[in-house]
Order: sequence, then structure tokens, then C-alpha cells
Amino acid sequence: MRFHTRKWVKPEDLNPNGTLFGGKLLAWLDEELALYTIIQLENSRIVTKHMSEINFRSSARQGDIIEIGIDVVKFGTTSLILKSEARNMMTRETIITIDTTTLVSLDENGKPKPHGKTEIEYIKDRLED
Amino acid sequence: MRFHTRKWVKPEDLNPNGTLFGGKLLAWLDEELALYTIIQLENSRIVTKHMSEINFRSSARQGDIIEIGIDVVKFGTTSLILKSEARNMMTRETIITIDTTTLVSLDENGKPKPHGKTEIEYIKDRLED
Amino acid sequence: MRFHTRKWVKPEDLNPNGTLFGGKLLAWLDEELALYTIIQLENSRIVTKHMSEINFRSSARQGDIIEIGIDVVKFGTTSLILKSEARNMMTRETIITIDTTTLVSLDENGKPKPHGKTEIEYIKDRLED
Amino acid sequence: MRFHTRKWVKPEDLNPNGTLFGGKLLAWLDEELALYTIIQLENSRIVTKHMSEINFRSSARQGDIIEIGIDVVKFGTTSLILKSEARNMMTRETIITIDTTTLVSLDENGKPKPHGKTEIEYIKDRLED
Amino acid sequence: MRFHTRKWVKPEDLNPNGTLFGGKLLAWLDEELALYTIIQLENSRIVTKHMSEINFRSSARQGDIIEIGIDVVKFGTTSLILKSEARNMMTRETIITIDTTTLVSLDENGKPKPHGKTEIEYIKDRLED
Amino acid sequence: MRFHTRKWVKPEDLNPNGTLFGGKLLAWLDEELALYTIIQLENSRIVTKHMSEINFRSSARQGDIIEIGIDVVKFGTTSLILKSEARNMMTRETIITIDTTTLVSLDENGKPKPHGKTEIEYIKDRLED
Repeated sequence: MRFHTRKWVKPEDLNPNGTLFGGKLLAWLDEELALYTIIQLENSRIVTKHMSEINFRSSARQGDIIEIGIDVVKFGTTSLILKSEARNMMTRETIITIDTTTLVSLDENGKPKPHGKTEIEYIKDRLED
Repeated sequence: MRFHTRKWVKPEDLNPNGTLFGGKLLAWLDEELALYTIIQLENSRIVTKHMSEINFRSSARQGDIIEIGIDVVKFGTTSLILKSEARNMMTRETIITIDTTTLVSLDENGKPKPHGKTEIEYIKDRLED
Repeated sequence: MRFHTRKWVKPEDLNPNGTLFGGKLLAWLDEELALYTIIQLENSRIVTKHMSEINFRSSARQGDIIEIGIDVVKFGTTSLILKSEARNMMTRETIITIDTTTLVSLDENGKPKPHGKTEIEYIKDRLED
Repeated sequence: MRFHTRKWVKPEDLNPNGTLFGGKLLAWLDEELALYTIIQLENSRIVTKHMSEINFRSSARQGDIIEIGIDVVKFGTTSLILKSEARNMMTRETIITIDTTTLVSLDENGKPKPHGKTEIEYIKDRLED
Repeated sequence: MRFHTRKWVKPEDLNPNGTLFGGKLLAWLDEELALYTIIQLENSRIVTKHMSEINFRSSARQGDIIEIGIDVVKFGTTSLILKSEARNMMTRETIITIDTTTLVSLDENGKPKPHGKTEIEYIKDRLED
Repeated sequence: MRFHTRKWVKPEDLNPNGTLFGGKLLAWLDEELALYTIIQLENSRIVTKHMSEINFRSSARQGDIIEIGIDVVKFGTTSLILKSEARNMMTRETIITIDTTTLVSLDENGKPKPHGKTEIEYIKDRLED
């Protein structure tokens, strides 16, 4: 799994218990999953369709640095299924793992659209072609 | 199920496809679930521990008004298990349903703490006692 | 008066005195009043025209849960006049009351437009028709 | 009346009618009134107690530049009463005027505290003393 | 140098050291510089092209009030070069100074466009003409 | 140069010309530079002291994905000097480059504090020790 975006836990991200809001973390993950999918499928018309169950294994506090990792589970015809994880960057402790999130590629009318991709591509390689 | 808080879909809540970001909706739901739990358990030290799988059945667009409903599934010893739904307020169309979210009551040291509650209470009744 | 939306007082809502910013509360109330009016008048082109004087009777602190109540004072030809209140959800203590806020329904050119409504309608009843 | 802070109307400040949210403008005004009072009374423990009625005389659109003006109406013993106005900076058209807003100076226990001021002071003069 | 907009340092503006984030201050300055240029050049199509080096001479803490000053260095054919400063309003201590920021006036196609201005104009004078 | 965090350009990040606000980009860069420094120096008390001049070479539009790259220029005794770049992720076009930003490590009293680091460390290696 490759870890990219880093998030810094700020006061507005905390619940009354002083720990990172679960919903905030889900919003961060969903945004990263959408960006990853836009880049892989070269289509910005993307929606989230399904998330598998979610265990909150540990939390984070103000000032912690979180990093978000994403891996491809499967390329469908119109979908991309991704595995994702958020972990504490300093300790590498896992905060949350989502086994599968299904994102779907849409056409201009909002209908599922085959994306024609079957494997991970790197922008570097695309640009070199 | 009782529906309370209303959210108004604004430009900053949209994905590049012009529809409501899935993660934003999850953040709204998680915040409502936390508030509901704080009120029922009369304890503001609350964390989300688990969410069951999530289907995004429809979406919403800018200007739509979303309302969020919550029901109790079960009172555990230290936890509260809730069912939740977000729907379009004007059409009553369901956007997302989460069968179970488990929230846990904590003590000052962040350890699970029995909450002593076994049924839904209304603040009105509490204040009348 | 029916109370709907709940707001959770966060660090960014506080003034230097550590209490809820008056202006933040006014913004929350105005947004709820606009949503309420959009739903009742079935028109999203709504502007606030007038607010009666405002007394800040008590305040709120970080972590408090505020609920917002709205009642209809009068249906005008192009306007809706509403009474509103914000109170602390746990104690039912009133924070602020605004006797009348006048919102006006507009047409596509931004001119006042008769809305044809004379009483409160519930969406449930509309959908059942 | 002296006009200081400028606000630039952004997408997140608009209502569904595409014009500036009334409540947003009230929040901007209240923050400016609080800052003005903190500076004049040399005390950061300030709360808003009362606002006189408010007429929304015109509105603003995305990209408009709003400037906010403040004048002293009266120095009370523990309070400061201010007049305020928001206007479109390019056209000088008035958007909103609030005849009186009463802000109160507090001590460490949140009780009203005499501030000892009777006239507008300029920081330049204070620093030269 | 004339000082206009005031900013109030809030929790979300702080770095982990509890002082004002350098980047936040730069964003505030850049927005003010853009607003100033829009007003002077009477054109809202403005982009920042260059900033000279920046020294952070002091910092600010939560609750501090910052004021931002701007002066014209030079009117170019399509550009405006501005000097800017942020200082602590209560102590007049300088936080940051940027000797030159170059902003450029654009036409509808995003190309540099001569603005025809050669000196500072006041809106009051424009409106009186 | 290694590129990590990705930012998605949203409506609230745009200037009136419809392109990414220069100041917003500077705020993103400064936050990334601070996080990078906190991780390398293993100290969260970090302030930005100096930035070299900045050229805005191209811009970005809503929906663009920006990635931010950072490289070490030099480890000082109490400082870390970094080079940084923001580029459009899809086209690899450079938007902005800052040759040097100097961040300083502080002790509990806000005084510069030697950090004892002389080369880039990877968390993976630290955890394996």
C-alpha cells in the first residue's frame, strides 16, 4: 500500500472527548479515494457506491499527523474497488481500515460508463508515451 | 425513526461530478450520531467504534435539503447501537442507510464506562422529574 | 414551537471570552429560517428582509448542544413571518429569541412573488396527495 | 463613520437565491463589533447583549466587496453601544444598518465590569503616551 | 501606509507551536492585495505573479488582532506592484513585511491587459465625478 | 523531489478570475513544509522564519489536483531549509516553486533549539531500530 496525503489533526477535527471525529476521518478517506479514482480512471465523474464495514481501531489527538494509504482491490467494468487505511504517521499505528470501497465512473448523464482500465497506471508513464 | 437536523447542500459539499460527496454525508451522520448518544447517555465522552457496511442509494445536488434520522437498535453496557438514515427532505427519497453504528461511552481515562441506560429518554421528562 | 436542527458548539464558534459568538448564532438561525421558508413556500428563491430586535439572554460554551425552534407568525402575500428561538438542549434554557423575521419569496428576476400559501404544510401530507 | 474591514463575497456566503446570506452578514458585523469593542475597552472579555431591529435594504452577489463601518453611540459604565453599517465598497450602496448593538465588558467571572472609558481612543495616541 | 482589514487570530489559524501559521498570514495578505488591486484597477480579473522574499519578524497568538497595510510601489502597464505589512494592532509590532507583490490585470481570455491607471484613486472621488 | 500530499481545488480556493488563489497555495505549501519539518526534526515546535522570492508560473482551476513536493536544501543547527514545489498532478506542469523556506526548531520557551539532525530520516528506519 502506498501512503500519500498527510492530514494534520486540528481543533476543528475533534469530538468532545478530545479525539479525532470518526466522521471527519471518513470524509478524508472518501476524498482521497475519489482523487485516486479520478487519476486512475482519467475521469472526474466519480461517485462512491459502497463501503464495507468499518472498525475504528485506535484514535488520534490534536497535533497528530495522519497519512492515508490506498491499494487497488479490483478493476471492474465501470467501477474501481479500493482498500484504504489511515494510520498515525509517527507510530505507524493503524487508526482505521476499510477493506473495500466501490467507486463508479459516470458519463455526462450520470450513468455508469465503462472506463477501459485494467491495471494501475503511473502518470509518469502516461506522460512519457 | 425520528428526523431532526437538516443540512443544506452547499458548493463545498460537492464532488467533481456535482453531487454530494459521500464522505461529507458520512461526517454529517457521524456527528449527529455522536450528539444523539451524548444526549441519551448524558456523557460527552463518546467515540465511534464500528459502522456496518454502507450503500449509497441515491445522491443529492446543490440546494437540496437533507434530513437525518436516528433510531436505537440496542443499549449495550458501555455502548449504544444506532440505526441511521439520510434522506432528501422534499422527496423523502433515501440517500444512505447505515444499519448499525456502535458508539462507546468512556470515562476520564478513555476507558469504556457502563452508562446505566436501558431505554430512550426524553429531555422533557428528565427536566420534569 | 417545534425544534429541529441541533448545532454543536465548537472551538471556531467561540469569542475571546470563551462563549458562543452572538453573530454565529444569528447565522445559524438565519440559515434555519431560510430552510424552513424554502420548505413551506416550495420556492428556493428566498431572502431575509427584516429581523426584530434581539436580546441575548444567556450564552453557551464549547461542547454545548443548541437546538433551534421555529414557528409561523403570519403568512403574507409574498412573505412569511417567523418566530425563532435557540436554546440549550440539555437545560432547555433560552439563549436567544427573535420575535419576527420576515422572509420574502422571489421570482427569477429577484422580484417579490406571491407564494399562494396560507398555512403550515407537512411534507408527509403533500407526498400522500 | 469609519470603514475598516473588507469582506469578499465567496460561494460559501450565498443563499440558494445566489445572493449574500443575511445571517452571514450579521456574523461579519458582530465579529467586527466585538473586535472594535475589544480595542476600545482594552478588554477581550466582551459579549453581545442586544441588537436593535435590522432592515436588509439591498443585497450583494459573489465577487462583491463589502466594507464594514462602525461608530460609537454611547459609552455606558460596563457597556459600549455601537452603530454599524455594511455597504458595497464599489457603489457605496448600503446593504444593512444596525442602529444600536450593545456589547458588555466582563470580568474573569463573566460578570459585567466597569471599563472606565468615556471616549474613542486611538492606539497611536495610547502608544505615544 | 494605510491599514484596513483586521483579522482575529482563531484556533484554526495556529500551528502546533501555538503561534499563527505563516501560511495563513500569507493567504490573508494575498487576499487583501487582490481586493486592493481589484478596487484600484476596477477589474476583478487579477492574478498574483510574484512576491519578493519574506521575513517573519515576529508572530501572533490566539486572540491577537492583526491589521494589514498596503501601499502602492508602482503602476505598471498591465500590473500593479504593492508593498504590504501585517502588524499586531494593539502593540503596532510588525509581524511580516513583503516589499513587493506584483499583481497583473487580465482580459476575458486570461491575457495581460493594460489597465490605464497611473495613480491611487479614491472611490469617493470616483463617485463624485 | 518526493511528492506527497494532494490537494483538490475547490470553489472556496478560487479568486474572482476563477483561478486558484495565490495565497491559498502558499498556505498549503507552508502547512506541508511545517509537517515535513516536524517529522524530520521530531519536534512539533516549529516556526517559519523566511521564504525566498516566489514566482507564480502557472495557475490551476476548479477540479484540478495539485501535488506538493519537498526536498531538503540544508540542515542548520536549529533550522531546516527546504525547497518546495506545487504542480498540476495530471500534466506535471509546475505552478509554483520556492527555492528556500527556512523553518526553525524551538524549545518550550519559544527559543531556537538545536535539533541534532544532519540528514533525512525515514520513519520506517526509525521504527526498525
